[in-house]
Amino acid sequence: MSGNTLGTLFTVTSFGESHGPAIGCIVDGCPPGLAICEADIQAELDRRKPGTSRHVTQRREPDTVEILSGVFEGVTTGTPISLLIRNQDQRSKDYGNIADTFRPGHADYAYLQKYGVRDHRGGGRSSARETAVRVAAGAIAKKWLKERHGIVIRACMSALGPVQIPFVSWDEVDGNPFFAPNAAIVPELEAYMDALRKSGDSIGARIDVVASGVPVGWGEPVYGRLDADIAYAMMGINAVKGVEIGAGFSAVAQRGTEHGDEMTPAGFLSNHAGGVLGGISTGQDILASIAIKPTSSLRLERRSIDRAGNPVMVATEGRHDPCVGIRATPIAESMLALVLIDHALRHRAQCGDVRTDTPRIPALAPEGSQRLPSPR
Amino acid sequence: MSGNTLGTLFTVTSFGESHGPAIGCIVDGCPPGLAICEADIQAELDRRKPGTSRHVTQRREPDTVEILSGVFEGVTTGTPISLLIRNQDQRSKDYGNIADTFRPGHADYAYLQKYGVRDHRGGGRSSARETAVRVAAGAIAKKWLKERHGIVIRACMSALGPVQIPFVSWDEVDGNPFFAPNAAIVPELEAYMDALRKSGDSIGARIDVVASGVPVGWGEPVYGRLDADIAYAMMGINAVKGVEIGAGFSAVAQRGTEHGDEMTPAGFLSNHAGGVLGGISTGQDILASIAIKPTSSLRLERRSIDRAGNPVMVATEGRHDPCVGIRATPIAESMLALVLIDHALRHRAQCGDVRTDTPRIPALAPEGSQRLPSPR
Amino acid sequence: MSGNTLGTLFTVTSFGESHGPAIGCIVDGCPPGLAICEADIQAELDRRKPGTSRHVTQRREPDTVEILSGVFEGVTTGTPISLLIRNQDQRSKDYGNIADTFRPGHADYAYLQKYGVRDHRGGGRSSARETAVRVAAGAIAKKWLKERHGIVIRACMSALGPVQIPFVSWDEVDGNPFFAPNAAIVPELEAYMDALRKSGDSIGARIDVVASGVPVGWGEPVYGRLDADIAYAMMGINAVKGVEIGAGFSAVAQRGTEHGDEMTPAGFLSNHAGGVLGGISTGQDILASIAIKPTSSLRLERRSIDRAGNPVMVATEGRHDPCVGIRATPIAESMLALVLIDHALRHRAQCGDVRTDTPRIPALAPEGSQRLPSPR
Amino acid sequence: MSGNTLGTLFTVTSFGESHGPAIGCIVDGCPPGLAICEADIQAELDRRKPGTSRHVTQRREPDTVEILSGVFEGVTTGTPISLLIRNQDQRSKDYGNIADTFRPGHADYAYLQKYGVRDHRGGGRSSARETAVRVAAGAIAKKWLKERHGIVIRACMSALGPVQIPFVSWDEVDGNPFFAPNAAIVPELEAYMDALRKSGDSIGARIDVVASGVPVGWGEPVYGRLDADIAYAMMGINAVKGVEIGAGFSAVAQRGTEHGDEMTPAGFLSNHAGGVLGGISTGQDILASIAIKPTSSLRLERRSIDRAGNPVMVATEGRHDPCVGIRATPIAESMLALVLIDHALRHRAQCGDVRTDTPRIPALAPEGSQRLPSPR
Repeated sequence: MSGNTLGTLFTVTSFGESHGPAIGCIVDGCPPGLAICEADIQAELDRRKPGTSRHVTQRREPDTVEILSGVFEGVTTGTPISLLIRNQDQRSKDYGNIADTFRPGHADYAYLQKYGVRDHRGGGRSSARETAVRVAAGAIAKKWLKERHGIVIRACMSALGPVQIPFVSWDEVDGNPFFAPNAAIVPELEAYMDALRKSGDSIGARIDVVASGVPVGWGEPVYGRLDADIAYAMMGINAVKGVEIGAGFSAVAQRGTEHGDEMTPAGFLSNHAGGVLGGISTGQDILASIAIKPTSSLRLERRSIDRAGNPVMVATEGRHDPCVGIRATPIAESMLALVLIDHALRHRAQCGDVRTDTPRIPALAPEGSQRLPSPR
Repeated sequence: MSGNTLGTLFTVTSFGESHGPAIGCIVDGCPPGLAICEADIQAELDRRKPGTSRHVTQRREPDTVEILSGVFEGVTTGTPISLLIRNQDQRSKDYGNIADTFRPGHADYAYLQKYGVRDHRGGGRSSARETAVRVAAGAIAKKWLKERHGIVIRACMSALGPVQIPFVSWDEVDGNPFFAPNAAIVPELEAYMDALRKSGDSIGARIDVVASGVPVGWGEPVYGRLDADIAYAMMGINAVKGVEIGAGFSAVAQRGTEHGDEMTPAGFLSNHAGGVLGGISTGQDILASIAIKPTSSLRLERRSIDRAGNPVMVATEGRHDPCVGIRATPIAESMLALVLIDHALRHRAQCGDVRTDTPRIPALAPEGSQRLPSPR
Repeated sequence: MSGNTLGTLFTVTSFGESHGPAIGCIVDGCPPGLAICEADIQAELDRRKPGTSRHVTQRREPDTVEILSGVFEGVTTGTPISLLIRNQDQRSKDYGNIADTFRPGHADYAYLQKYGVRDHRGGGRSSARETAVRVAAGAIAKKWLKERHGIVIRACMSALGPVQIPFVSWDEVDGNPFFAPNAAIVPELEAYMDALRKSGDSIGARIDVVASGVPVGWGEPVYGRLDADIAYAMMGINAVKGVEIGAGFSAVAQRGTEHGDEMTPAGFLSNHAGGVLGGISTGQDILASIAIKPTSSLRLERRSIDRAGNPVMVATEGRHDPCVGIRATPIAESMLALVLIDHALRHRAQCGDVRTDTPRIPALAPEGSQRLPSPR
Repeated sequence: MSGNTLGTLFTVTSFGESHGPAIGCIVDGCPPGLAICEADIQAELDRRKPGTSRHVTQRREPDTVEILSGVFEGVTTGTPISLLIRNQDQRSKDYGNIADTFRPGHADYAYLQKYGVRDHRGGGRSSARETAVRVAAGAIAKKWLKERHGIVIRACMSALGPVQIPFVSWDEVDGNPFFAPNAAIVPELEAYMDALRKSGDSIGARIDVVASGVPVGWGEPVYGRLDADIAYAMMGINAVKGVEIGAGFSAVAQRGTEHGDEMTPAGFLSNHAGGVLGGISTGQDILASIAIKPTSSLRLERRSIDRAGNPVMVATEGRHDPCVGIRATPIAESMLALVLIDHALRHRAQCGDVRTDTPRIPALAPEGSQRLPSPR
C-alpha cells in the first residue's frame, strides 16, 4: 500500500508539491448518493487556508477546489472523486537559497538521502501545503458521518507553546484565529504571537479533537484498532510528535480504580478511555490530543551543512507559519473524520449495516460522558 | 486489509484467543536465507512470558513455539513462516462470572456490541496473551535487522506509575523483573508493587523504546510515515493510550531554535526529532515512548452493568498482571522491529538496495546523537 | 499485500509445504454469528483429498482439519479463524533425486532462482497440496453465501484431455471420481486414464464453475472487477493456464447482436456475459471456465539441467496425479466462493446491506438465464 | 484496497467519467531518478487515441496529458505522479436517449443496480475512455522496465472476429490501424470492417501480448502469482472475456511430455508455459492472449427494458468503436507493463536488487525460447 494513500475502504490518495502546478487527491470508496458540491468542500478549506490573519503565513492561496469526477447531478455516484487545487502563489525564488542546504529540523535532508533527488521549492512534497488535500477529502467524510450517523467532529487548540488554554465552549472556537475554545484568552495569545514573530522564532502547540455521536462497535482488533488508526492518521500530520487517546500519558500514573470508566444503566461515569476500549468504539466521545512541534523554517540563523557536507549557517526567508499548530485544527478534524468513515465502512462490511441477526443489549446513554474535550 | 495483519510487505497475521487451543501467526514476506530456529524465537518469548516474578500474572504458560513452515534446513525460504503456540493453562472457570457482565475499562462491552457474540474466557481475543505472537514474529524481524543492517532495538521502563526511573544504562535492563535501566531503583519498584498487589489495585507505566543503527532514508511520506507506522504499531499494543516520537509532548512548549536539531559535518547536535523528519529516518536513533494504562481486571469491586442492562458490582478473580506495563517492554521492542523491517523492504522496493543510480552526500556520523533513550 | 493472502476483506492467508509438519491458513474478516464446525469443513476437504480413486495420487493424507481460533460455542466470533492440517504421509525419500535437478514444466527452477533456496521435498510450497487450504477456507465462504444469500456454487469437468464431456446434470457430478456431469461418459474417461497411467504420461483438463443466486450489484470497477478477481483467483490455482468468463474466447468471433444479452421484463434472454457486465454482477449465473495443464511430474524421462547447469535426464518417481484437473473441481468452487464473499462484504461496505436510501428498479427474474454451465 | 487502484507497490489510482471534466490518475511508488516528460507519455497515448482511422470511434479527443506532480527538472522524485487529461469532445446529447434504458451487453444496468445512481453520459465511468489513463501510466512503467532491465513489451492483434492473423513480424504492427503483425492481411481486415460498419453491428478480437527480457524470479506464490496478476489486469480491461498464459486453453488437450518445456544448458526448448512456472517468471518471454467481446453500443435495435421495467427497443447513436479490440493493443501492453513493474519492485523488496547473499545457478540463455508471440 502506498504511503500516499490513507484508508482501507474509504481511501484518499494525495499528490502535489508546494510549488508545482497543483495539489489534489482521489477519494475512492465513497458511498453513493451523498449530496456534495464544491461549496461544501470550500467551506472547510477556507478554515485552513493561509493569509487569514497576521499570525499565519502570508502566502496568497485561494485554495479553490475543483471536483473532476465522481459527482453527478449533485450526488456522489460511488466512483472515484478527484479533487484539484491549483497552486497560485509559487514564489520559488524565495527558496533558491535552500536548494543546496538543509534546514535544521526540516525534512530536506531525509528526502534527499532517501530519493537521491528532491523538489526543494517550498519544501516540495514535505510542505504543509499538502494538508489542504486532507481538509478537502475530510469535508466529504464529515458530511457523510453527520448525515448518516449524526456524528460531529470538532477540534480546538488547548495549548499555544507555554500558554494553556482552558476549555470554555465549542462556540468560541471559530470566533478567533487560533481556534481557541476560550475568547477571553485570545488577547494573551495574540500578544504571545506578536512577540514571537518579532523574535524570528517559532513555537509548538497542542490540539484536542473530539468526535461525538460515534456508535459503539467501530474498530478492528488487534492491530487495526480504531485508536491505532487514529494514532497513525494524527502522527501522519506534518510536525506532529505525539498522540494521546483519552487520558493519554496521564494514564501512566493512574490506578485501575481511577482509570477504568465505571458503567451504570444510565451510561459511563467518566471517559478516561477516550471512547475506545480494545480498539473498538464504546459509544462515548472519541478524544484525541496531538503535540505539534515548532516550525523548522526560521529567520534566525542555525548551524547546518550543505550537499557537499560543508558547515553552513541557514536561515529561511520564505513565508511561513510561526506556529503551524494554529492551522492544524481543521486538519486534525479531517484526519479523524477520514479514520471514522473508513471504520464505519469496514464495520458495515463485516457486521452489517443494521444488526438484526444477533440480539443486542441496550445501548448505554452517553449522559455520563466527559464533557470536556480532554480529560486533563 | 485485515485488522489482524500488521505490515505491508513483511506481514504478521495473528490469531488466537486466551483460552482457545492455541495462539500463533503467519509471518509473510520474510527475506529468504535468514538463519532462524525455534530457539531464536523462544529466547525472546521467555522475556515476555508470565510467571517469571511475583509482580506479574501467575498463569503458567511455557509459551513453547513451533515453526510449521517457511524454514528449511535452518534458513528461511521466502515462503510464509507459521508459528504456533499451544495454550496450556486455560482455567476457564476463573472467568465464569464475567460471561454476562462487563469489566469497567475492559473491551468486554465493545466486543459484544460489535460482534453480537464474544469468547469471554480470559478476555478471548482482547487478552494480552495475544502479544506473545508479536514477540515471536518480532524475534525474526530483530534478527534480520541486526544481521543485515546492524540495527539494535532496546526498550526499558521509564516510569512505573508515579515513580520516575532515571536512565542509567542498557546493561541494567535485563537484570531485574521491571526492565528498569537502573538497578538502584529496583527496591523502590518492588516495594511499590508489593503494596499495590496487596491493595488489589493496578497501575500504569511508561516504556521507552530505541532503535540504533537505522539507516537514513527509511519511511514513506505523506501518510505512511515511519513515525506514523510506529504510532500505529505502538497504539495497537493492548492498554497503550499515548505515543511520543522524540521530544513528543515536550515539543508543545519548545521554540524552533530549541527543537530543530542542528547539523554539523560531524553529525546532529541533538535528537528532539527522535530520528524521524518528514516521516523519513535521519540516521539518528529512533526514539519512541508509550503510555500504558493500568490493568482493568481488579480484585476491587466496581460499578458496571450486565448483558440485560442491570446494574451490578464487578470484581475479577482471574490471574492478572497488576501492571501490564512490566511485560510490555519486549512487546514494544518487537513492534518497533516489525515496523522497521517493513520499511526496510518498502524502501528497497522503491529506491533499491544499494543506491548506485544517484550521487549521495556523505552520511552524517551519529556522533552527536542524543545518548539517552528519551530526551526528557 | 502478501502473495500468500487472498482477498481484501474476507482474507485467507495460507502457509505450508508439501512435506513440512503442516499446512493451514488464517481466515480473517468472517462475519460473526455463522454456525461452523470442523465437520462442515471436513466434508469439503474429503471431496478433494488424495487416494479416493485409482485415477489420482495414492498419497495417504486424511487431511484432518483442526479449528484453532475464531469459533466459540459453534459460531464464528468475527475474530481470525485458524485452520490447521497436519501432514501425515511425507515420504521425502521419494524426492531425493530432484533436490539438485529441475523437472521440466515444474516450478523448481523458478523458485530456486527467486529465493536462492528451496524446499525441494514434494515440490515444497509449489505443491498442489497447498490447495487443501483453499478448500477448507472455501467451505466457510460457501456456507455463509448459501445461508445469507442462497447462493449455490458448483463445478464440473467439461473436458478430460481430448475427451469432451457434454453437460447432462449437476446431479451426476458427485457420483464419479472425475466430477463429470455425465455418468454415461465415465467408462470412456476411466479407459482413457488407465491407458494414460500405463504410458507414464499426464494430461490436461477443463473445469467449468458456476455460481447461482448471486445478487445484482457485486463487483468494483474499474480494476477490481468481479471478473478480474475471478480471473486472478482461478489463474492462482496450480497448473491453470487460461480463464474464461461467459462466452470467453468464443466472444472473439461473435458479433454484437449475438453476444450482447437482450433483456425483457421476464429476464435476460441469454448469458454470454457470464453474469458480469462492467465488472459488476448482473444477477444471472456467474460462469467461468479454466484450462488446467498436464502434471509436470512424469515417470517418463525428459531433458533438463542440474543446479550446476549440466544436462541431465529427469524422471519423477513420487506419487502424483496424472491429471491434476480431476481434483481441481472442488478447488475451483472454493476459489469462486472466496471471491464472492469478499465482494459481498466490499459491496456491503460501500453501498449498505439493504439499500434503502435510493429507489431500485425491479430485479430481473433470471428465468431466461442460460441453464448450461457454460455457453459452449 | 480500492477497485480503482491497480498494483501493490507501483500503484495507479484512476478517476474520471467519459463526459465529465477530465480523466486521470495518480501513479505512486515510482522509483526516483527516472527521466520522464509529457512527450514520453503522449507518444503512447497517441497510439490509443480515437479518430486515427475510419475503423475506430470518430470522437475528437487529443488526449493531451499534463503532469501535475512527482517530476522535477525532468526526473521522477519518488513522490506521486499525477496525470491529467481534460475531456474535450463531450457531446452528451448523443446519449440522452440512454438515460432511462439499458443497452444489452452494457454495464448500464449493473451500475444502476449497484449504486442506485449513475452518470449515463457516454457510459460514465464504465466507458472505455478510462483506458487512456492506463496507457498514460503504462508509459512510465514501460520506460523504467526498458531502461532498468531492457524489457520490451509488445502486443498485436491475432484475430479480428473470424479472421485469423498469422504472425509475420513485430515490425509490421505499427504500420496499420489494426496493430496487425502482418501487412498482407490488412486489406482483408479493412474490407471486413467496412462491411461491418455498414451493417451497424460490432465484432470481437483477440490480442497477443509479449514481454521479452523479463528476469527469472519475478512473481509471488501462491495467490499473488505473476500470471494471476496478469490475468487480473487483463480481465480488468473493458470488454475482455478470456485470458490465456502460454499454451492457454490448448493445454487442456496436451500431454505432459508435450506441454512441459524441456531445458538444456543452452536454454528452454519451447515455451508452453508462457514464461511463468509456479507463478514465477522463468526468464523466457511472457506470453498472454486476451479475448475481447464485440462492442455493446450498436445502431441496430435490440430488446431491453427501461428503468420502470417496461420493454423497450434500444439502439445507440453515439460515436463508438465497432471493434474495441483494435484500440486494445496499446492498453494490453500497458497493463502488462504495470504488472511487471509492480512485481519488479515486490521482488526487489523481499529478495534484494542484486542477489549477493546466496549462490545462483547460471541463468539459462533464452536461445531456445519460442519466437512467436503465442504458441498457437
